Amino acid sequence: MPTSLTDTVDVLRRTPTVVAALLAGAPDAWTETPDTPDGWRPRDVVGHLISAEIDDWIPRAERILEDGPSKPFAPFDRHAHLTRDADVPLDRLVEHFAELRAQTLARLDELVTDEADLDRRGLHPTLGEVTLRELLATWAVHDLDHVSQIFAGMAGSYDAEVGPWKTYLGILLRRDDPAAIPG
Amino acid sequence: MPTSLTDTVDVLRRTPTVVAALLAGAPDAWTETPDTPDGWRPRDVVGHLISAEIDDWIPRAERILEDGPSKPFAPFDRHAHLTRDADVPLDRLVEHFAELRAQTLARLDELVTDEADLDRRGLHPTLGEVTLRELLATWAVHDLDHVSQIFAGMAGSYDAEVGPWKTYLGILLRRDDPAAIPG
Repeated sequence: MPTSLTDTVDVLRRTPTVVAALLAGAPDAWTETPDTPDGWRPRDVVGHLISAEIDDWIPRAERILEDGPSKPFAPFDRHAHLTRDADVPLDRLVEHFAELRAQTLARLDELVTDEADLDRRGLHPTLGEVTLRELLATWAVHDLDHVSQIFAGMAGSYDAEVGPWKTYLGILLRRDDPAAIPG
Repeated sequence: MPTSLTDTVDVLRRTPTVVAALLAGAPDAWTETPDTPDGWRPRDVVGHLISAEIDDWIPRAERILEDGPSKPFAPFDRHAHLTRDADVPLDRLVEHFAELRAQTLARLDELVTDEADLDRRGLHPTLGEVTLRELLATWAVHDLDHVSQIFAGMAGSYDAEVGPWKTYLGILLRRDDPAAIPG
């Protein structure tokens, strides 16, 4: 794998461990609340991460390397988890995500062997031309974005429990008003 | 420890593992950016968590149990880490936080033995009367709030790397505009 991918892969390898440290065996008291009123519970976030391991990152990397910008990426269903994972226990979702991530990183290692590959281009259906390097950086930041959503849902589970301290807790205030500033 | 504290302690025990999974040995490429322009880098967040282990949660629990609302909590310096930790490597901060958390949880187990203790009251210098139960719930949500700040700083390190995908990444957009909604 090109050395300039080392930092990106560093985060990609950590994410399943972080998710398991946070959620494996966690009591329902922390895992039943969405991050915002119309948002996602921790299990929805893990389900979405699973969908992206299956349908997004590796298929798009393959398309860049096989077709370049001549053929746009296939659309990605952000809500596939809602039906697919409805009856799957959260702990099993956490394990499944880790299994898939190990497979996708192994596949990435096969796919991208040359620094020059990272500058190869593909066609995003709405964003236009993008590079493989940008796709892989986005994979890592997408992990950070969605795992931080798990924290917001967990915090939301304790919205009432903190009593008057809520005014100092941005993670709770922002669930009601994204622009809120803690007092 | 009272059984109604089990869920709160579940998160408090997880946090050092989550922080280590995210930051131990992480390359500088991910750890040098604050969550917002005036915000905190991951090392500042861990430093603040260390300060709270030393000066906030346990001293306040002790004051509630010893003095009740007759004597307000001592003020807590939110910026103590800036001078104290300036030369401490991030990995050492991560370890120190875990050591302190193990000690504070052991002390909590000694301090709070009875369900009725959780309804005992103390006096917050600005919020007024609060219960021990609320203090301990706030300890857990404060963990979630600040660890999610680490994710925002890490994501910010890759702000440029994601190219046009930034428009879909709320964790990056909100660093510029807290009310931003991903496209």
